[in-house]
Amino acid sequence: MANSFGTKWTFTGFGESHGAAVGGVLDGVPAGLSIDLALIRSELDKRAGRFKDVNDTETRRKRDENETITGVGNCGASPRALREPDEVEWLSGVMSVSGRSERSVSETVCQQSGLSGEAGLITLGTPIAFIIRNKDARPEDYEWLRHTYRTGHADKVYEQKYGIRDWRGGGRASARETAARVVAGCIAKQELAQRGIAVQARLVQVGAETDPDKFAETIETYRREGDSIGGIIECRITGVPAGTGEPVFNKMQAELAFAVMSINACKGFEYGTGFGGVTQPGSAINHISGGIAGGIADGTDIIFRCVFKPTPSTPKALKKLNDQMVNVKMVNRSDACVAVRAVPVVEAMAALALVNLLQE
Amino acid sequence: MANSFGTKWTFTGFGESHGAAVGGVLDGVPAGLSIDLALIRSELDKRAGRFKDVNDTETRRKRDENETITGVGNCGASPRALREPDEVEWLSGVMSVSGRSERSVSETVCQQSGLSGEAGLITLGTPIAFIIRNKDARPEDYEWLRHTYRTGHADKVYEQKYGIRDWRGGGRASARETAARVVAGCIAKQELAQRGIAVQARLVQVGAETDPDKFAETIETYRREGDSIGGIIECRITGVPAGTGEPVFNKMQAELAFAVMSINACKGFEYGTGFGGVTQPGSAINHISGGIAGGIADGTDIIFRCVFKPTPSTPKALKKLNDQMVNVKMVNRSDACVAVRAVPVVEAMAALALVNLLQE
Amino acid sequence: MANSFGTKWTFTGFGESHGAAVGGVLDGVPAGLSIDLALIRSELDKRAGRFKDVNDTETRRKRDENETITGVGNCGASPRALREPDEVEWLSGVMSVSGRSERSVSETVCQQSGLSGEAGLITLGTPIAFIIRNKDARPEDYEWLRHTYRTGHADKVYEQKYGIRDWRGGGRASARETAARVVAGCIAKQELAQRGIAVQARLVQVGAETDPDKFAETIETYRREGDSIGGIIECRITGVPAGTGEPVFNKMQAELAFAVMSINACKGFEYGTGFGGVTQPGSAINHISGGIAGGIADGTDIIFRCVFKPTPSTPKALKKLNDQMVNVKMVNRSDACVAVRAVPVVEAMAALALVNLLQE
Amino acid sequence: MANSFGTKWTFTGFGESHGAAVGGVLDGVPAGLSIDLALIRSELDKRAGRFKDVNDTETRRKRDENETITGVGNCGASPRALREPDEVEWLSGVMSVSGRSERSVSETVCQQSGLSGEAGLITLGTPIAFIIRNKDARPEDYEWLRHTYRTGHADKVYEQKYGIRDWRGGGRASARETAARVVAGCIAKQELAQRGIAVQARLVQVGAETDPDKFAETIETYRREGDSIGGIIECRITGVPAGTGEPVFNKMQAELAFAVMSINACKGFEYGTGFGGVTQPGSAINHISGGIAGGIADGTDIIFRCVFKPTPSTPKALKKLNDQMVNVKMVNRSDACVAVRAVPVVEAMAALALVNLLQE
Repeated sequence: MANSFGTKWTFTGFGESHGAAVGGVLDGVPAGLSIDLALIRSELDKRAGRFKDVNDTETRRKRDENETITGVGNCGASPRALREPDEVEWLSGVMSVSGRSERSVSETVCQQSGLSGEAGLITLGTPIAFIIRNKDARPEDYEWLRHTYRTGHADKVYEQKYGIRDWRGGGRASARETAARVVAGCIAKQELAQRGIAVQARLVQVGAETDPDKFAETIETYRREGDSIGGIIECRITGVPAGTGEPVFNKMQAELAFAVMSINACKGFEYGTGFGGVTQPGSAINHISGGIAGGIADGTDIIFRCVFKPTPSTPKALKKLNDQMVNVKMVNRSDACVAVRAVPVVEAMAALALVNLLQE
Repeated sequence: MANSFGTKWTFTGFGESHGAAVGGVLDGVPAGLSIDLALIRSELDKRAGRFKDVNDTETRRKRDENETITGVGNCGASPRALREPDEVEWLSGVMSVSGRSERSVSETVCQQSGLSGEAGLITLGTPIAFIIRNKDARPEDYEWLRHTYRTGHADKVYEQKYGIRDWRGGGRASARETAARVVAGCIAKQELAQRGIAVQARLVQVGAETDPDKFAETIETYRREGDSIGGIIECRITGVPAGTGEPVFNKMQAELAFAVMSINACKGFEYGTGFGGVTQPGSAINHISGGIAGGIADGTDIIFRCVFKPTPSTPKALKKLNDQMVNVKMVNRSDACVAVRAVPVVEAMAALALVNLLQE
Repeated sequence: MANSFGTKWTFTGFGESHGAAVGGVLDGVPAGLSIDLALIRSELDKRAGRFKDVNDTETRRKRDENETITGVGNCGASPRALREPDEVEWLSGVMSVSGRSERSVSETVCQQSGLSGEAGLITLGTPIAFIIRNKDARPEDYEWLRHTYRTGHADKVYEQKYGIRDWRGGGRASARETAARVVAGCIAKQELAQRGIAVQARLVQVGAETDPDKFAETIETYRREGDSIGGIIECRITGVPAGTGEPVFNKMQAELAFAVMSINACKGFEYGTGFGGVTQPGSAINHISGGIAGGIADGTDIIFRCVFKPTPSTPKALKKLNDQMVNVKMVNRSDACVAVRAVPVVEAMAALALVNLLQE
Repeated sequence: MANSFGTKWTFTGFGESHGAAVGGVLDGVPAGLSIDLALIRSELDKRAGRFKDVNDTETRRKRDENETITGVGNCGASPRALREPDEVEWLSGVMSVSGRSERSVSETVCQQSGLSGEAGLITLGTPIAFIIRNKDARPEDYEWLRHTYRTGHADKVYEQKYGIRDWRGGGRASARETAARVVAGCIAKQELAQRGIAVQARLVQVGAETDPDKFAETIETYRREGDSIGGIIECRITGVPAGTGEPVFNKMQAELAFAVMSINACKGFEYGTGFGGVTQPGSAINHISGGIAGGIADGTDIIFRCVFKPTPSTPKALKKLNDQMVNVKMVNRSDACVAVRAVPVVEAMAALALVNLLQE
């Protein structure tokens, strides 16, 4: 069950980075919920680092020539992200709102037929299955990985665990699977929105920098040096009714930590007074709850923070590896700061955790 | 299921702080495992703040007169902890190693009949149920809580959630339930030890202080001012075979975070490079794994840290509350630094999380 | 998790037949539910075969001299059943309705203090733990079982599975654990009753006999021959709202079958047209639903039937075994028709299954 | 989680009868298991009623003109079954054994490229996702169902439960979803075969008929009258090691009953002495175990039986309905005896239940 999350709204993900598709099944969603296709589109774009400036001539050239693209918006996303359209194909659990019995309701079809994103699909109460095909999968780019383990990656432990390994871009261990989490998370947000609950994450620190205006610049500095840097994301959840959550083992903070710590590259989670609070006496901080008391929402905003490490497979690291492996063509497809693209994933996981806690 | 932890070794806890007993059922333990009663005794004493110096005259007097006891060893534990013997009564799932058909194998009986702690009890493969009676429960000490919500406590949210509340010392929300976690954790450690795995937690920071020799002094300073202070615990797990753990949602770090964040007063969890790593470039830290890669143990030591907030119900806080509630007798039974007593609980939860991951 | 049932109201049972106690933890029960102690008393008596006529002189003598007691009411129950008071000790999750902070609220105490069974205890929303001590455990009666496997019993497979075995009366495999199921089932019935749902099981066949007036006589015939006989129980559930239940894998009939087939000695389950319907054409029986369509309640009465095999360890069987094992004192403590005492257990399991389905 | 089965090998099914596809995700399968595509092909054909004689001219004509096809082999399967190729598309969790990085490994591709069915695919240890597209879905055939509830079907309760309903051929309630169960069951059988375990089901009774040579004739009699008839399937499981299974709530018989009773139209389950044993004294039958003692395999063959009701939506029943609804075009696509096609589904569910029990 390592690929399932939640016991009320159960999300089961599947898919290797360079196999046929990544996707998921979301079971437990009530009937009659509208699926906001525009939100899914926008969140998938954020996760992929696809931003507005992707259409200028220079960016297009870089994308086509497999160079890393820079700039404020995309914060150093990899070229693959920009080439993958991430089109969602819906397989079950939904009908088009017109009530006509379309057999396959793909996102594209809905948009073409003039259905607004908001009203395009409605849930049936049965499991919602969807896939995102891996269109830009270039397994040949990873041929060098067949017999190589990258430092800071899961290449080696997967082989130790399974004896067999899909070496192509990390296989199941690749962060590509988070695309499916984002789709499921958007459906969860839809349910939360109906209850007046909003989940909003944002990058609050990149390296030592805490001024958002300077994040792109900081990332670019590391990228230029063939290096990478970590970041901290803060997530605020508003509108959770007091009394939501469970005590003892399934405390809300434990569920949120579990959800967020399952994201690739996440190294820590804190809420309320967090690690910083250790130097403060009880008399000074005993009013700061972070929105949770005894594992249960107290009605104030829930605020947590999580930290993402820098990508380990930087050009610098690959160069070092290459010096030992002459004549191997290594292609780096990674970002300089994965925390940027982790923002919609953190939101998705928090939304999935919450929607489960609301059903208890 | 908020009171159950784990799907292979499933621990189900129960009990209110001032009800008849706290206890638990541990299901999934293989047959033939010896239970180390001496370890359980020692860990329960640590959790309660019962240390060697408890027997000097002055400490006894304080204990009997309900005064907080100070000193290096106990770091400001509450008097209740020192009066509760925390005797474990075993109800099922074990037989005494002599093979004689005792009907009730209490810890005391085992020791009296000359059975060593190590060899006293052996598991049957059936669910192990045990209770620790609340002998020093003084519900009358909490009469004032019947209509009062303490800041920083779960009093209010429990009433919001359940409509009814056992106000006596926090009821189910009290940290007293962690005694049952410690017992279950010791059984888990026994299994881990057989596989060459050790879990070792220690206090590494109290307030701003990082020198262990000065922890007691620091705590005493806050206690004397009627205040409290937080602390950071580091836990090191050695001997976990590479390949242990699951990918995607049940990553080892997610399971450990879930386990540890469920402990009362814990406000944050980090492993490997943690929050501190945010300022370091990938090239400098991509070799630091914290013992886990892609959610799976890589064969090196697993190291995580967690932070505990200061107790909110300090004498200072109570005094403030009292000024608004004249003529109410308030009794404070809390510690100045709960992180001290959280050490065995962190170990217990890590052991339970691990033993579950090893069964996958 | 083999000792837990249900995912919303999770019941975890524990206890060996001749250990300290059998008991259970029921987690997920909402706060504020009254516990009907009189119902629990009455159902435990039915399960044990304790009936009114137990107090006449002859019955008392038999009970004390360990002879099987006969008669209409008890249908051949074993003497142990009549000697065990099955007193429930409540450990957590409940408060006495007076609101006074009793530390231990045992059933007896409630009755002595003039609390009516109906109003005696109220749930707190926290896990309800209770035990029934094994007062009449006579492990010495089972000394002969230490190295013997009984035909038709689980003695041998337990040893094969666990390597170790509590031979005393079947240990965990004994039907004694069903006492704890009955207690939990009564709490579930209380919740069901509030929703207008009733669960009613009754014996409808003993051997070839279908006239209830002749059941006792039939059983007595087999008992007198040192033999045993099976029976069929029918259970009717009224008041379940149409739409209750889940489709596909967790269909209501699958959940009920799972619940009932887990009872010792149960060999079959059917509902609606059942096995008998195989000879009828669709046109004749397609209106008979058994209360369930597509796994979901259709608003009519749910009716299922289940069959219980005859006890295998009859005096006749033991005599045969004894011929091979000279000089071994064998004591038979079993009934001539276990189906009689299975009635309250079937009700309990159906109630637990239903209360879980109602939470989905 | 109503669409998931099993906690070790977790199968999650999805798909509506006339939506884009049915399919599933199977998580927990170890790495390195070969998938027997020929077995999957053969079992899917059995489930669909696709038999050898499908290629004669008369059968082809009937298939194309939507007439029910008769004959020994197919026992009255509906025309849809014969037109649906049920091609499995593999989305994740497998690689082709050649190790080449095909991006999509469909069943067809494997066969075309000369890979034998046996050696075609190998599991990666990651979740295996697959779909079977609904190629012959003719939603227009079900237009009349949009506002009609069929007797003996789940049409009405689905609307009561969800408020919304995919009326096209039963939607999620249709037995079409069992195609996905069959695929998952074949993978489970592969694992069982490696351990020397075989699962073999067969039809043993149709109506009152118990001679297999006369089953086709019996079914044809009912079909000719526009009626339908039930059947009994017996399943024998050989090679299960003694000691397999769990006691108390998850007894092997309870798990098997749960698995089998979840199949559409199944009305009863029995093992060992079953319902028939009720008239036999203990002394005569206490040696018959059905392969299970105390919930645990005893090393002998496990034998269970289950009964399937006749299809409710027969031409006869539809005609009656039609008399009330003039001018509605009703198309019947159902079989005269669903028990025939249930045989591979019973095997699949038993295999999935067993493979889960073996992991405990």
